[in-house]
Amino acid sequence: MTLKSGVLDPQGKAVRHALGALGVDGVGDVRQGKFIEIDLAESDPERARESVEDMCKRLLANTVIEDYVIEIGG
Amino acid sequence: MTLKSGVLDPQGKAVRHALGALGVDGVGDVRQGKFIEIDLAESDPERARESVEDMCKRLLANTVIEDYVIEIGG
Repeated sequence: MTLKSGVLDPQGKAVRHALGALGVDGVGDVRQGKFIEIDLAESDPERARESVEDMCKRLLANTVIEDYVIEIGG
Repeated sequence: MTLKSGVLDPQGKAVRHALGALGVDGVGDVRQGKFIEIDLAESDPERARESVEDMCKRLLANTVIEDYVIEIGG
């Protein structure tokens, strides 16, 4: 999950500022996001994706200000 | 960045609990982590990786309790 591109990201800004203070050069935009790793009993990837999509909409993501990407795997 | 596997993850536990309360079945372990997306001026992938490795050790990750993975790309 990341904040939508028009939404201010103070954590990202703080990281960028702190890197500057440490003398790290060449740092442009910094965005901070989060991810959630879920072990699912579902073995069908398509159904697993639908299930996670549902979780994102109902609970995990704040779709007003956040975008999310779902990855199903290993 | 994720919490190392032995470290308690209360956010992940809370998500798992909330999914159960919503009636979602088949959810096993849940771990929450964060990621930081950094635009770098460096065009050499090897040097970019070294630079990010350095940022992780000096600032971004708490290596006592967190593991981190670096991805360089597009």
